[in-house]
Amino acid sequence: MTESSSRPAPGFSAGATLADVGEFGLIAALTGRFEQGDQVYVGPGDDAAVIRAPKGHVVVSTDVLVENRHFRRDWADAVDIGRRAAAANLSDINAMGGTATALTVGLAAPSELPAQWALDLADGIAAEAGKVGASVVGGDLTQAREVVVAITVLGACEVAPVLRSGAHAGEVLAIAGRQGWAAAGLAVLARGFRSPRALVEAYRRPEPPYSAGLAAARAGATAMIDVSDGLLADVGHIAGDSGVAIDVSRGAFELADPMHAVGSALGVDPMQFVLGGGDDHAIVATFPAGTTLPEGFHAIGSVAAGEGVTVDGGAYDGPRGHAHF
Amino acid sequence: MTESSSRPAPGFSAGATLADVGEFGLIAALTGRFEQGDQVYVGPGDDAAVIRAPKGHVVVSTDVLVENRHFRRDWADAVDIGRRAAAANLSDINAMGGTATALTVGLAAPSELPAQWALDLADGIAAEAGKVGASVVGGDLTQAREVVVAITVLGACEVAPVLRSGAHAGEVLAIAGRQGWAAAGLAVLARGFRSPRALVEAYRRPEPPYSAGLAAARAGATAMIDVSDGLLADVGHIAGDSGVAIDVSRGAFELADPMHAVGSALGVDPMQFVLGGGDDHAIVATFPAGTTLPEGFHAIGSVAAGEGVTVDGGAYDGPRGHAHF
Repeated sequence: MTESSSRPAPGFSAGATLADVGEFGLIAALTGRFEQGDQVYVGPGDDAAVIRAPKGHVVVSTDVLVENRHFRRDWADAVDIGRRAAAANLSDINAMGGTATALTVGLAAPSELPAQWALDLADGIAAEAGKVGASVVGGDLTQAREVVVAITVLGACEVAPVLRSGAHAGEVLAIAGRQGWAAAGLAVLARGFRSPRALVEAYRRPEPPYSAGLAAARAGATAMIDVSDGLLADVGHIAGDSGVAIDVSRGAFELADPMHAVGSALGVDPMQFVLGGGDDHAIVATFPAGTTLPEGFHAIGSVAAGEGVTVDGGAYDGPRGHAHF
Repeated sequence: MTESSSRPAPGFSAGATLADVGEFGLIAALTGRFEQGDQVYVGPGDDAAVIRAPKGHVVVSTDVLVENRHFRRDWADAVDIGRRAAAANLSDINAMGGTATALTVGLAAPSELPAQWALDLADGIAAEAGKVGASVVGGDLTQAREVVVAITVLGACEVAPVLRSGAHAGEVLAIAGRQGWAAAGLAVLARGFRSPRALVEAYRRPEPPYSAGLAAARAGATAMIDVSDGLLADVGHIAGDSGVAIDVSRGAFELADPMHAVGSALGVDPMQFVLGGGDDHAIVATFPAGTTLPEGFHAIGSVAAGEGVTVDGGAYDGPRGHAHF
C-alpha cells in the first residue's frame, strides 16, 4: 500500500460504480482532493483554470494512456497507475529543463468502473505532481468502453528550454536516472511473475530524476529528451533532430543484480532492457566536451558527424523501443 | 465539403490505415499541417511546446470526446468532428473572457482507422483554432478500441477572468449565440433524418460567439459560462456557484422556422431544445442591472436571492441537459 492510498480521505463505498455516483458526484469528490499551490489563480470548478506564468511563457505537453496498452488494472493498483501517468507527463517538462506547475486530467471510463478506483487514480496523479509542486487544476470526465487517461501538464523554464535539436559532433551523451529497470519489471509481469520485486516496483512506481532536467539546462546541455519510447529510439530522436550520429556504449551501464537475475530467468540479455526500455523516464542529454556533468548524470556515449545511432560503434539489431500502431 | 477539407494538402492513400502509416508517419504528416502563430516559441516535435504568456498567466481547459457518445463518424465528416471538438474547448476559454492561444490534441484510435480520417480531423481542429488565432502545438497519438479525442486549450485573459461564482441578486441574465439549434439538429440525426438542413449544419459546425466572452468581461459581466451541458443545467452552475436563484424566460427566445418545423416533425415542444440543449456553445452571463449589454447579447432572465433555476417563475420538468454516466 502506498503512502497516498493509506491517507485518510473520504471515498465511495466499495461497490459504488461511476454510474452510481454520477459525473457530478465524482467531480465533487475529486475536486476536494486536489491541493492547489500558490501558482494557481483559479483552480478546478470553472470553465477553465488560470495558472500564474510569471516568466511570461508556459511549457505544455500531453500524453494519453489507454488501459491494457499503457497499464493493466491487474498489474498495478490505481494509485500507482496514477503516479505513472503523471510521471510520464512531468518527465516531458523535465526534459525541457523546466518545472511543472499544473496538470489537467481527462478520464474516460466505463460506467461500471468502481468509483473508488477513479479516486485512487486521482490520488496517485496528485501525489506524483506534488513531488515537483504541481497542482491538478482541472479535467474532464466521460464515459468510454475502456479506461483512457489523458493528462496535459503545464510548466515553466527558469533557463532557456533545451530542445532535441541542439547536439553537435564532439559532444558527450549522458544519462540521469535508472534505465531499463521498469522495462525489465514489465517483462517480469508479462510472464506472470511478481519478482524480482525491485524491478516490478520500478515499473509500478518509476522515480524519474525530476531535478535532472533543470540541472542539465544550467550546466549547458545542448540537447535533451526523456526516455519514453526506448533509450535507442529516443537517442535516435536527438540524432535525427540534431543532424548528428550518436554512439552508445554498453560498458557505460552497470547491470545491477536484479537485472542479471531477470535475464537468467527469462533467458534474455538484460542489456536489451537498458537499450530498448522506456518506462523509467530517465533523462538523456548532450553536453559540450569537457563539461563537468551535473550530479546524477554519467556519460554513456558520444556525438559525431553523420547520422543514426550505433552501439559500441556498430549496428544494433535488438529492440530499440516500441511502436504505438 | 468544407473550406479546409478542400485545401490542397498531401494526404495518405484512401485505403491506408493508422497501422499502415505508423505512429511516426502520421505524426510527421500532422505536424506539417499545423500553422504556428507568433505566440508559439517552440511548436510540435519536442518533449513539450513553449507558448508565450506575456500577461503572466495562462488559462487552461480540457475536454475528452468519445466516439458514439460525443460524435459519430456516420453523422459528420472528420473535418467537422475536428471543428466541433476544438469549438468545445475554445468555448471554455471564451467563457472566462479569454482568448485561446494554443491547443494540444491527444488522439487514441483503432489501428484500422483510415489515416486520412486522422488528417481531416486535424485539419478541422486547426481550422477552428485558426478562427481565434490559436495554434495546435503538440499532442499524442496512441491505439485504443474506440476513437477518443482529448483536447487541452491554453489562453490568456486581457481583463480579469469572469468566473461562475460572481452573480448577485438583481442582476440580468443574458445570452450570446444561437441556442438550441445544435440540439435540434442532433435530434434530427438521431431519428435518421437529414433535414431541416440548417439545424443539422448547426450541430455539425457550431459557430460559437468567440468574441462574446471578452466583450462581456469588458462590459462588466459578473458571472459567465458556456452552454455545454444544457442551458438550464449550465445556468444552474452559475446559480449554485454564486448562491443565487435564476429565472429564465421562455418568451426571451424567438423560435426560428426550422425549430418549429422540427418540433412538428418530431412531435415535441421545440423549446426543449432551447432550454436543454448544449452543443451550440452559446455564452451566458450575468450583468448588473442597467448595464448596456454588449453586442450579440440579449436578456433571457433575472437573478434573485435564493437558489435553483426556474422557468417563467415556476419549476421546469423537461430535460435540463445530459448526464455523462
